[in-house]
Amino acid sequence: MNIEMIRAAAQRLAGHARRTPILTSPFLDAIAGRRVFVKAECLQHTGSFKFRGGWSAVSALPPAALQKGVIAFSSGNHAQGVALAARSHGAPAVIIMPADAPAVKIANTRALGAEVVLYDRATEDRDEIGDRLAAARGLTLIKPFDEPLVIAGQGTCGLEIAAEMTALGVTRADVMVCCGGGGLTSGIALALAADAPGLRARPIEPEGFDDATRSLASGRIERNARLSGSLCDAIITPQPGNLTFPIMQDHCGPGVVVTEDQALQAMALAFDRLKIVLEPGGAVALAAALFHPDASEGDAVIAVATGGNVDPATFAKALA
Amino acid sequence: MNIEMIRAAAQRLAGHARRTPILTSPFLDAIAGRRVFVKAECLQHTGSFKFRGGWSAVSALPPAALQKGVIAFSSGNHAQGVALAARSHGAPAVIIMPADAPAVKIANTRALGAEVVLYDRATEDRDEIGDRLAAARGLTLIKPFDEPLVIAGQGTCGLEIAAEMTALGVTRADVMVCCGGGGLTSGIALALAADAPGLRARPIEPEGFDDATRSLASGRIERNARLSGSLCDAIITPQPGNLTFPIMQDHCGPGVVVTEDQALQAMALAFDRLKIVLEPGGAVALAAALFHPDASEGDAVIAVATGGNVDPATFAKALA
Repeated sequence: MNIEMIRAAAQRLAGHARRTPILTSPFLDAIAGRRVFVKAECLQHTGSFKFRGGWSAVSALPPAALQKGVIAFSSGNHAQGVALAARSHGAPAVIIMPADAPAVKIANTRALGAEVVLYDRATEDRDEIGDRLAAARGLTLIKPFDEPLVIAGQGTCGLEIAAEMTALGVTRADVMVCCGGGGLTSGIALALAADAPGLRARPIEPEGFDDATRSLASGRIERNARLSGSLCDAIITPQPGNLTFPIMQDHCGPGVVVTEDQALQAMALAFDRLKIVLEPGGAVALAAALFHPDASEGDAVIAVATGGNVDPATFAKALA
Repeated sequence: MNIEMIRAAAQRLAGHARRTPILTSPFLDAIAGRRVFVKAECLQHTGSFKFRGGWSAVSALPPAALQKGVIAFSSGNHAQGVALAARSHGAPAVIIMPADAPAVKIANTRALGAEVVLYDRATEDRDEIGDRLAAARGLTLIKPFDEPLVIAGQGTCGLEIAAEMTALGVTRADVMVCCGGGGLTSGIALALAADAPGLRARPIEPEGFDDATRSLASGRIERNARLSGSLCDAIITPQPGNLTFPIMQDHCGPGVVVTEDQALQAMALAFDRLKIVLEPGGAVALAAALFHPDASEGDAVIAVATGGNVDPATFAKALA
């Protein structure tokens, strides 16, 4: 995994992924006590940065593999990113989802052209189903984060941050990144190390699901006690990846942990001051930038707002 | 009023106004039956396109006038646009607002550095107050739409649409524009006529406040029967401007009228599919693009999403 893979992914994504804007508001600056720059990745195709990794992986496949298609396990943003990337390449996509996933997510993934295969969490083994389908049809598995092509795709977000902050003259600052398995965090960290070494990626996690933060502190991969039960469902993973963790160790600053209430407050401020829609897991980086000013130094902070796929009821809760 | 004034405004706005993104979603394309391109002007500074006109007018003032300051009548988006533009130029700003304006709007305008002067709608004459203050302090009045420098500023949005749609190969399409007094509509229409003559601006209005639509149909300025009582408060004006109407006559296609329910539905779809926050008046153009497909021809339509300054209760109503 190296910077050249990220630059190659950027070439493949050019003209297909959106170069998302960096937004600001004097009201957010006042809360944080420094300038706040928000990379609005919720405006990416399919509503999250996951499209970058999906496109990177699908676009790198040789024609024969593309023709057979791809497969992914996901109930959320990765599913939609892979599905749209595959459809755009004319490749079949199979997405394995739990049968109790929200109906709207199943419908959205199908509407993006994917074949959705449902399994029963209680009685079926999703890996077994996936292996069987992949073997039978020759499908290529696209893992959500511990996969070099996916990390490279997410890293293109870091190249954009490096270029834009350099142009703005911001050369020393922390870059808060919502962190699940660490694909985005490690990709951004590699890109910043190469193109803007004064900018430092920081993994941001919700309370109770701070595996990356604890792993960076202890120096070895730590696991979360719980595997569900957070509003920030998009970034709940058992532990950092075997590929992503060493990259984070080499290039990231310490993690920051925020509460669910802080994530909801950040969603409300993004609504009010930036006019963007964030999901709870996509708002934790902004929450860290706004509500944990002591966690970083300097006169600027960058927050990557990673996704906006939230149901109306949860959004209304954040605004209330 | 001519294209050179818009190009000059674009020079003054460069590096200060945001070049807002054009967003898309395959789900919106499916609803409209053609490709839908949404110019997300809600992501402009202060949450609406009004910052463009404010900046254009303030930045054109000679130093002596800047030092004395500016004055505007507004309870909404124009106030915030002018206030932030003035503060950025180090110019005092006085905003005359009705005392019964929402407290949050008054607070926001003050937070942007403006002096807010409140008046009682029932007993006081706002023009008299404004004239007196302007004369006493030598303030320059910045009108909300019927002012060449303001139209020129709003027109920069049209230059960006022309450039980006030309780059995408979309050379014939209607550009739906949320229309109040016609500053944005006429500015965009002039810009398109110069830089992308196959694109045509269309004023979009809410039911009951369709003065521009009726005026274009009859060939003379028509007035609305009511002056309040619409959810789309940002675009409720008594009639088209004396400057903006002739420009619209020369360059715009017929108006389209949408219902409040359609505006709310467009807000919900912008939330769900684009991850942007729109206010009702900022969503009528998208509503026309999505729900009035027979109003235009061709395989593409552009909608200008003009603003996102909406209170949580109204937003929750749209999502419900």
